[in-house]
Parts: sequence; C-alpha cells; structure tokens
Amino acid sequence: MSLRSVAKVLGFLLLVTAACLLLPAAVALLYREPDWIDFLAAAAIGGVVGGGLLLALRDAPDLRVREGFAVVAFGWLVVGLLGALPMRLSGQIPSYTDAVFESISGFTTTGASILTDIESRTHATLFWRALTHWLGGMGIVLLAVAVLPLLGVGGMQLFRAEVPGPTAERLTPRIRETARLLWGVYVLLTALETGALMIAGMGPFDAVCHSFATMATGGFSNHNASVGGYATPAVEWIIIVFMLLAGTNFSLHYLALSGRVRAYLRDEEFRFYLLIIGGVTALLSAVLLAARFYGTLGETIRLALFQVTSIITTTGFGTADYLQWPPFAHAVLLMLMAVGGCAGSTGGGIKVVRLLILLKTAKLELRRMLHPRAVFTLWFNGRAVSPALQTNVLGFFLLYMVVYGVGVVALTLGGRDLVTSVGATAATLGNIGPGLGLVGPASNYASLVPWEKWLLTGFMLVGRLELFTVLVLFLPGAWRRS
Amino acid sequence: MSLRSVAKVLGFLLLVTAACLLLPAAVALLYREPDWIDFLAAAAIGGVVGGGLLLALRDAPDLRVREGFAVVAFGWLVVGLLGALPMRLSGQIPSYTDAVFESISGFTTTGASILTDIESRTHATLFWRALTHWLGGMGIVLLAVAVLPLLGVGGMQLFRAEVPGPTAERLTPRIRETARLLWGVYVLLTALETGALMIAGMGPFDAVCHSFATMATGGFSNHNASVGGYATPAVEWIIIVFMLLAGTNFSLHYLALSGRVRAYLRDEEFRFYLLIIGGVTALLSAVLLAARFYGTLGETIRLALFQVTSIITTTGFGTADYLQWPPFAHAVLLMLMAVGGCAGSTGGGIKVVRLLILLKTAKLELRRMLHPRAVFTLWFNGRAVSPALQTNVLGFFLLYMVVYGVGVVALTLGGRDLVTSVGATAATLGNIGPGLGLVGPASNYASLVPWEKWLLTGFMLVGRLELFTVLVLFLPGAWRRS
Repeated sequence: MSLRSVAKVLGFLLLVTAACLLLPAAVALLYREPDWIDFLAAAAIGGVVGGGLLLALRDAPDLRVREGFAVVAFGWLVVGLLGALPMRLSGQIPSYTDAVFESISGFTTTGASILTDIESRTHATLFWRALTHWLGGMGIVLLAVAVLPLLGVGGMQLFRAEVPGPTAERLTPRIRETARLLWGVYVLLTALETGALMIAGMGPFDAVCHSFATMATGGFSNHNASVGGYATPAVEWIIIVFMLLAGTNFSLHYLALSGRVRAYLRDEEFRFYLLIIGGVTALLSAVLLAARFYGTLGETIRLALFQVTSIITTTGFGTADYLQWPPFAHAVLLMLMAVGGCAGSTGGGIKVVRLLILLKTAKLELRRMLHPRAVFTLWFNGRAVSPALQTNVLGFFLLYMVVYGVGVVALTLGGRDLVTSVGATAATLGNIGPGLGLVGPASNYASLVPWEKWLLTGFMLVGRLELFTVLVLFLPGAWRRS
Repeated sequence: MSLRSVAKVLGFLLLVTAACLLLPAAVALLYREPDWIDFLAAAAIGGVVGGGLLLALRDAPDLRVREGFAVVAFGWLVVGLLGALPMRLSGQIPSYTDAVFESISGFTTTGASILTDIESRTHATLFWRALTHWLGGMGIVLLAVAVLPLLGVGGMQLFRAEVPGPTAERLTPRIRETARLLWGVYVLLTALETGALMIAGMGPFDAVCHSFATMATGGFSNHNASVGGYATPAVEWIIIVFMLLAGTNFSLHYLALSGRVRAYLRDEEFRFYLLIIGGVTALLSAVLLAARFYGTLGETIRLALFQVTSIITTTGFGTADYLQWPPFAHAVLLMLMAVGGCAGSTGGGIKVVRLLILLKTAKLELRRMLHPRAVFTLWFNGRAVSPALQTNVLGFFLLYMVVYGVGVVALTLGGRDLVTSVGATAATLGNIGPGLGLVGPASNYASLVPWEKWLLTGFMLVGRLELFTVLVLFLPGAWRRS
C-alpha cells in the first residue's frame, strides 16, 4: 500500500472540511456568539495540515483499489477528528473523547449524542452538528455510487441488481456525473423539507438543521426532547415523509424527477421497505391501542409510524420514549435497527435489499429440499442474482453478526447490562443513534465511560462504511507493499 | 405425498414407543407405586393404534424422499403425544398441554420442564422423563447418520465434510450398520457414566436417569435444583466429561474406540468446539473471580465450565443460577445456546461445524475484497466445501434466525418481556431447556400460558429436526400428489 497516496487524499479531505468549518464560524458571527474564533482556528489547522499534505505529496502516485479502502476508512476518521476540534476548543464539549464521539456520530449520520443539555449549546455548535450529518450524507451518496463499487463492496453489481431501471439503462455513463445528479436530488429534497418545516411553523435555523439531519438520516436535533420538542403533528408528518424519502434509493428519486415516477413501485426493494414499515406500524399501533397508551387512533398511528420510520431509516429522531412502550416495541425496533434503509440511500444498517436477498436465499434452500436436482435462480427486480453476489451479501450479514457479537461481549464484559449492550451496539453499528436501556431515546451516551465511547465510535465507522471497507484493513495482506 | 405410507411408519413408531412404555410400568411395580396402570394403559393405546395402522396399511407403498420429511416431523410429534398420555392419565401432570410440553421436551432432548416440584413425582414418571430423552437421543443419532442425509438436510455431504476420517473411508458401507455401531457407542457411554456416577455416590436410580439425560444432551434432572441438588464436585466433574462427550460427533468416538484416538484432534470441528468451551470458560471464570462470586479458583472454574458445557452441548443441567451472574454470562450463554453441539452428536442448536463454515465464509468474503479476481476455496478438514453445501449451511443459519425472530415477536406480542422472550425462544429452538428471564435455570416454564407452551413445543420440534425437515412441510409443494 502506498501510504503517500493515501495521505495525499486525506489532505484533500481535510482541506474541504476546513472550508466547511467556515460556515459555522459565520453562523457564530451572525448570532454574535464568541465561538467563531474556535471554528476559525479549527479551519486554519485543517487548512494548514491538509494543504501541507497536498503540497508535500503532490507527486504521490495515483490511488489503486487497495488504497481505496484506507482512504475511505481513514478519510472518515480524520474528518471526524478535525470536526471534533472546534467543539473541544470552544469548551462546548469539554472532553475530546466526547467531542470525537459527537463529531463522528455526525459524519457517520448516526446521531448518537453525549450532550445532556443540547438547548444551551451555541448556534454555531448546533449548526455544525447538523452540517456534519449533511456532509456525511453527501459522502455516503458518493461512496455508494462511485467509490464502493470500484472496491467491490456490494459492488456496482449490487447497485445494478438493486435498481434495474437507472443502471440497466446506465443512469449516466460517468460516475462523477452520477454523483452530481444524486447530490442534486439530495440538495433539492433538503431545500423542500426546510421550506415545508418553515411553513409548518418551525424557525429557519431549526428548519435547516432538522432538514440536514433528516436527509442524512442522521438524527441530531436542536432539542433535548428531539423532534418531540416541537410537538406539532404537521412537523412530525413532514419529517416522517422526508425520513421515508431519505431511506429510499436516491436513484429512484432521480428517475421520478425525470418523469419515471413508476420506478418506485417497480423496485422490489422499495416495495419491501414500504411493506415492512406498514406491517410493523400496524402491529405496533394495535399493541399501543390495546394498552391504551395514547388518546386517539390518529395520534397512535402517527407516533408508531414516526418511531418505526425513524429507526428503520436509521435516522433516530424521537417523538416518544419507546422504552415506555410494551416489550413488543423493543423487539421489533431492535430488529429494524439491523435492517436499515434501502441501498443507495443515506440510511445505514444491513439494508433492505440485503435482507430481501437473504430471505430469498433461505426460501430457495427450503424449496431445494423438495426438488434436490432442480436448479434454482435467485431473482431480484427481474434479474438473476449471481452466486458470487449472493455470497457477498451473506458474507456481509455474517460479518455484521460477528461485529454485533463482539460489541455485546465487550460491553457486557465491561459490566453493562445485556439490554443496554445490545441496544448500544445495534444503534451505533446500524448508525441509528438512540438504542435501548441506558442509551434509550430519552437518555443518551453521556454516562458511558471513555473506552466504551471509543468502541462505539469505531462501530459507527465500521457500520457506516459497510464493514468490508474497514475490516479489510485488519487483514495483514492489506498492508503489504505490492 | 402418500399419506398412507406415512401413516404406516407412524404406526410402527407408536408400536415401538408402546413397548418402551412397559419399562416405566415395571419401574412403578418395582417401587410399588400406583401409576403402573397408567403406563400400561398408554402402552395398550399406543399398541392398538400403532398395530392397527400397521395392519391396515401393510400394503401401503414404500416411502419416497418427500414422505421422509413428513415421517420425521410427524413421527416425533405422535411419539411425543403418546408419551404425554401416561403422565396425564396418572395425574402426575394434570394438564395435557403441560404433559405434551414435558414429553416433547423429553423426546427432543430439550429438557425444558413445566414441573415445579420434581422431587414429589413418582419414580415411574421420573424414569419415563429420562427415558424419553434417551430414546430421543437414539432417534437423533439415527436421524443424523441415516435419515437426514437421504433427505438432503445437511446431507451425507455435510456429514462427509464434517468427519473426513470415518466417512471418507466409509465408516461402514451400510447405513443400518452405521446406526447400529453408533448406538453401540451411545449405550456404552451411558453405561460408563452410570457406573461412574454410582461410584461417586449417586444412587442407582438417579445415576441411570442422569446418564440418560446426559448422553441425550437432554437435561431433565430428578432434583428441583437440577444437578446442583447433589452438590458434590465428583458428580459435577463426571457429568461435565460426559456432556462433553455427548456433544461430540459420535463417529469420532467410534473411531477412537477402534483405536484411532487421534481422530479427535484431527477433526477441525472438535478442536473449535474445545476452543469455544475453553475460551468462554476462561473469560467467564475471570469475570466471576473479579466479582468475587465463589470462594476458590477451583470452584469458580468448575461452575463456569459446568454451565458453559451444559449450554453449548444443549444439555441444560444446572449447578448454579447463571441469572445471578454478571451480564457477560447472560450474553455469552445466550450466544452459546445458538451454537449448540457438534454435528453427529445428540446436541442441538446450529452446530459447531456450521458456525465454523459461516465464519470461514465471512473471512473469505473479506479476503476477496483484496483479491477480487482470485478464486477462493473454503476448506474444512482438508476437503473443499462445495458452494452448494456452503449455501445450504447459510440457508440453515438464515432460517434459524427467521424462526428465532418469529419466536421473539410472537412472545413479546403476547406481552412477555424481551429477555424472557429471547431466552425462551433460544432455549427451546436450540433444545437447551433453561433460558433467561422468567424461564431461567432457577425457574421453569410452568408460568407460561397454554399458547406459549404450544408455540415453544413447536420450536423444540423445529430445532431438533434441523429446521428444514419441519419447515419444508409448510411449502404447498410438499403436499402435492406426484
């Protein structure tokens, strides 16, 4: 591996992040808050280090596939470390461990927070948290369509298999162009949500921050009570709709915007995604009604749908403390944490398409029992899924389970109770945010000890970068000079 | 499917069970207990129904593969239903739901009990419970070596892949002979354990019953406090050793008995099995020592090793209430419940060999990232595992997860807490016995409501019969006349 090539790209990423740090500095000046200087200082440090690396390594060789893994994994890490700096410098988050947790939680669009009193933070800090989400979401879109396929993670194969429409017809021949188009969709949806939230009565600052957090399926809110702090049905419904959109494959939005609206319903993954959300919401509403949790049917359905959508899309906004709900809610929400959004969305988790392929594999193996000599093909969206791709999906699922198990073992070994350990692992690995037990929606990650925070920060990165990308770096072969 | 052929074999199985029911009747007479008549009555009913079916259907066509699934699934069920009869008739277990739960828990070698006061049951009842385990264990050995391979479940392929020694050299050419040899091993080990337990001071009746329950990896004990009721280290160590042996592939025992003792260490599955047990026991002992649970290192290791072995082999005997242990114990024991014993043993669960193949698949997929064009082969015991077999293992794992999920959803939907729901599903699907929460080792399944008991009874059958065998009957195609 050429470390110089990797460092050169990291320099570029630091430079971009430094430029972005000027935005919260401007927000601080706008609101006459003193921490503009800290954001400026962080921007300067990022700019000097990033620019220095770029200059010093300007003749480093081009990246090859192997370096790609390191760039992605370390890229998210160094950007997260730089992003933590201003919050630490300003004292808005006094511990660097906490600041890194919050920053990486932002850039990985997780939304797990260590802040106990969000509302007393400066505007610049709140804006920066939201912006880390939004930038992270942009990174994920780029990663999904342009970088990971080159690395063979999920692969353009998987992407092609997922959305036959756009990629069978080749969304656009050039990857850079594709990314630009999907970013356009991302920006457009963010703008629409901001407008809708303002019409519903939210102030412009909160509207922008919540739109950033929604479209990235992040989940940082400016309120201690999350979206529940606004408590108007209109705001909740708007956020439900945009969470649903953010958890959908962005290629489908692009197709819809170019006039092919039926692409949504022709996509098996999207149909299954709606089916899960609808089915779980219906069951959950019935359970909540039976237990007389809320006054009306409408309120019950809205609250059930909000939490279900928030969890499956891995956003993590809350309007109800689901830990107070009956155990059925805990069980299904825990399962949904692993499911995650659709591929090609900003959502995390295993992804709906992978779950679908896993279920089809299981059903096929069952049918094979009756017809041992028949040859079965796994179909997805009308195309045969190759055995290699199938194994890749299974491998992903198994690795997910392994990391999950490691997390639960490590946290319980440290003395945490089983439910908190499972919930914290699920919520960080799946990039959701709130978990179960001590890290439920009504509390946060502040009470954890430093090594737990670092471990969970690692899980956010591993989960966000589709496991393979990070875990491959633990193979000795990844570091061999070629 | 020819229902007549299926019914004919079921008749034969009922007849065999009826004959076995004469043994507890004899025990009752020996101890001058009044329930000899109930066992005799059940034997008569089984004999008449079974004999009648055999006679009436004596010219039914031979079984084909498709009927094999029905025979296995319904065979275990009808034998379990008949086995429940005497306990219901005698009033030793007043509810038929409970009697069926206990009987099928016996025949599936699960060991989950609804009895709150075991010690006040008659000798005949206690003996019959132990005998259901032992007969179930014999059935499992037969199933593993002779029936399932024919049905393509795991397949002789898998068996061959597991133990290269015995089957590469063809343990014996004829299946019937193979089963007879392995039964010989089973009987021999049972006799050895009975002798050892008696030497350690256990009475002959208890020694026989506990040996039956150990070798079948069942777990029914004659004491309310399970094996903990004997509380002598010698008894505990003897049972640890025989649980380990019962969870090992019986082909390895056969090879060892015919002089090839090194077969154990040449087998990858066995090595991994020991590695898991050793590793988890070491960690658990460290945690228990750190929390100062027991007085001495020796006691700590013995108790940790006993519960670990009991759970991974899916026996379910207890000498300590692990629910009182730190959360780490709950997490690892819950994971071990899913792992289960080695293939070709009487243990349940996913099986160590499948776990090993799953982990190798995950590692291979990771390596494939670095070398996208290389062709990787999955090796097990020095032989390449075919992609078809690999997919079969993955399909099994996925189905296991699906059934697991259905169990947790159903139980929480009924209002049970998350930990009890997870524990009860894991402990019945994996054929362990004691679970977590309300169904932990210090309590039992008595407090559940009837529909929960029937559901969990179903899980015992599904888990014991390697999922495919039962689940395939839910496909419409299974019932089509050919």
